[in-house]
Amino acid sequence: MRRWSVVLVTTARGAKANVMAMSWHTMMEFEPPLVGCVISNRNHTFGILKATGECVINIPTVALAAKVVGCGNSSGRRVDKFKAFRLTAAPAARVAAPLIDECYASLECKVVDARMVAKYNFFVLRVLKAWIDPGRKSPRTIHHLGRGAFMVADRTIRLPSKMK
Amino acid sequence: MRRWSVVLVTTARGAKANVMAMSWHTMMEFEPPLVGCVISNRNHTFGILKATGECVINIPTVALAAKVVGCGNSSGRRVDKFKAFRLTAAPAARVAAPLIDECYASLECKVVDARMVAKYNFFVLRVLKAWIDPGRKSPRTIHHLGRGAFMVADRTIRLPSKMK
Repeated sequence: MRRWSVVLVTTARGAKANVMAMSWHTMMEFEPPLVGCVISNRNHTFGILKATGECVINIPTVALAAKVVGCGNSSGRRVDKFKAFRLTAAPAARVAAPLIDECYASLECKVVDARMVAKYNFFVLRVLKAWIDPGRKSPRTIHHLGRGAFMVADRTIRLPSKMK
Repeated sequence: MRRWSVVLVTTARGAKANVMAMSWHTMMEFEPPLVGCVISNRNHTFGILKATGECVINIPTVALAAKVVGCGNSSGRRVDKFKAFRLTAAPAARVAAPLIDECYASLECKVVDARMVAKYNFFVLRVLKAWIDPGRKSPRTIHHLGRGAFMVADRTIRLPSKMK
């Protein structure tokens, strides 16, 4: 699996789900799997993530590029992006934020460290559950094997791994 | 300019310079330009960066891929990587760590926040000066224009920018 550059972050408050495009993120640890990311406090997602402490990082395929850019160019304050860009919300297992069914993989996350949010808008997220959808229809769950490896049925994918 | 996935980080202690390959990094802010990165405390670079508070992030071209992987597979504790991989150290302007002449661009950085080093090996770096070398011979300085844009003579390149 190649390094994902732009990902789609979903959040939910009550019945209202939102999605934003995010490019400022990095893996921080394999075990437990941690992701660090910057989400501007000007973004609608910022307030929801701060309030709920939950999100899903959805990894789009190239086929979704136009929708990703659309999400990046609009705000959830004014637009229901799931409707506007015809994205399908699917229930997650551990968080209220939805998975995006069209995405290749999804990582359910919770905020585990918010110490750098005030100064840098930087959130440390722990991946609670990871999904992959090779057939792009019904996502199957994947299991974290450590050092960025995830198992899916008989397949293995890798999240961006340290040089070695 | 495309998003750089793996970069080369140089550090120096006394006359001894080191270089490591790093893939866990993210832009954190445009103004001032901040980069966040994870450097494992098992890496030789970790101790030098912690002690000196300075490094250079060098952005390789694809032509350097084999050298980058070589740097990632060896340790500065045992190997002089500049020699081993025939990389040319050039003096930086604001830090003691050298630029790598073969790289496309170089960002001179100092550590501005080390609060998350103990727990996550996560450093917040401020870019003090940026260089680009379109001709790959004598690096010219570039100037930060804000929001990730840098000017080089009459050219403009962009560091990874937020969606917009």
